[in-house]
Amino acid sequence: MMTDLWLIGMGTGSPAHVTLEGMQALRDAAVILLPLKGESKEELAALRYAILHAANTSAEIRTFDYPLRDPALPYADRVRVWHDAIAARWMDALGADAPRGPVALLVWGDPSLYDSTLRIARRLIPPPTLRVVPGITAVQALTAAHAIPLSTLNGPVRITTGRQLRAGGWPDDPRDPDCKDTLVVMLDSDCSFRALDPVGLHIWWGAHLGSPAQVLRAGPVAEVADDIVATRADSRARAGWIMDTYLLRRRSPPTR
Amino acid sequence: MMTDLWLIGMGTGSPAHVTLEGMQALRDAAVILLPLKGESKEELAALRYAILHAANTSAEIRTFDYPLRDPALPYADRVRVWHDAIAARWMDALGADAPRGPVALLVWGDPSLYDSTLRIARRLIPPPTLRVVPGITAVQALTAAHAIPLSTLNGPVRITTGRQLRAGGWPDDPRDPDCKDTLVVMLDSDCSFRALDPVGLHIWWGAHLGSPAQVLRAGPVAEVADDIVATRADSRARAGWIMDTYLLRRRSPPTR
Repeated sequence: MMTDLWLIGMGTGSPAHVTLEGMQALRDAAVILLPLKGESKEELAALRYAILHAANTSAEIRTFDYPLRDPALPYADRVRVWHDAIAARWMDALGADAPRGPVALLVWGDPSLYDSTLRIARRLIPPPTLRVVPGITAVQALTAAHAIPLSTLNGPVRITTGRQLRAGGWPDDPRDPDCKDTLVVMLDSDCSFRALDPVGLHIWWGAHLGSPAQVLRAGPVAEVADDIVATRADSRARAGWIMDTYLLRRRSPPTR
Repeated sequence: MMTDLWLIGMGTGSPAHVTLEGMQALRDAAVILLPLKGESKEELAALRYAILHAANTSAEIRTFDYPLRDPALPYADRVRVWHDAIAARWMDALGADAPRGPVALLVWGDPSLYDSTLRIARRLIPPPTLRVVPGITAVQALTAAHAIPLSTLNGPVRITTGRQLRAGGWPDDPRDPDCKDTLVVMLDSDCSFRALDPVGLHIWWGAHLGSPAQVLRAGPVAEVADDIVATRADSRARAGWIMDTYLLRRRSPPTR
């Protein structure tokens, strides 16, 4: 029976992204659940092993494979059934013979942002006590790599997905007529910024953030969009996969 | 002359929030600039010393005091003049006799979010090479403490300030009629959520996040608003200061 489940943010591309709290939690856990197959990115499995090595933990490692999604189901059902199946895989991997004590999972980025591990954990019966250890998100890896602020002075920030951007365009908030908003786009495999009016629009883009394969581009969208599309395709071909994120801002970047 | 300036995110309330990369950067730095007086929170200075102790760095520590803001100036000028003065204090603290090599600064939370250290650094002449090491933000400390996701499934997130919320109310995006937005409010000393229509509005609130004095409240705004106001006042009176953050979401929290 799982009494305690710890979700530990692992950052985006480097074991050095993990916090001291995260490393200590890996040492304090009795069992670590480690996904092997089913993620498209084998580098993620290698990164998890590198983190466990750096933590020098003596926790027992139990592996599981992600189930397949059912493409015949509509989106919401497909996600729900898939999450049910992942929760079942966790329990199968633990089995009856697992050591008693906290169970830990390393979660890409931070468990709070565009990640479903918390939602999957809410399916477990009886519900374990959840602990979340924050990790560095791709948003933070992006702004750090470019050495830029995420927020303008007192300005709001919006984080959204490629799907939302394609459906709604630039968020049109009549109460923010200056459009000084910062927009961060994640989970976008289509370079959806190309659908926006490029006038006055700046982009800071990055892929493989935090890893040795990190690649960055920045400038007015009108000038750098084609280069980003080509660089993304090239970087994806080299690595066999890609995760990229970008920040958009109307008007020129604030320097003071 | 400062050739390299490293801004290291220190997280919000615990030395354990610092990443391995941040700790290594503190050891690799030649000089660490440490603010002493002028921040309202003496605990911040103590936290910085605790982090330096945990890092076991042999960098030379140079301290500086924050200048005072000029209340006679309008807001934008007041901030600009104050940032100029802070940059001058950094250079004074380094002086001509500082060891050559990278200079490091510990920045509350993450240097990208509602922090001006990057803007101040852009004032330095000649411009040093900037390096940013991400840290855990109060937003992440909040969602981790409540063990909740920041984003709903594929949903956008908006981060804003108390000042913006008071000026504009709940962001009114006609392209997002479901109002399934998540709104995170920072820098709010007035519990500005009380100005919003509470119908269907849930809040997750936290103060002194990540520290032993951490206090949390969550529930429908209509039911918990008064308790949060009272708890905030009490927590502030005990500590002598307070920093709090909260997340608002319309409709009930997603559990699946």
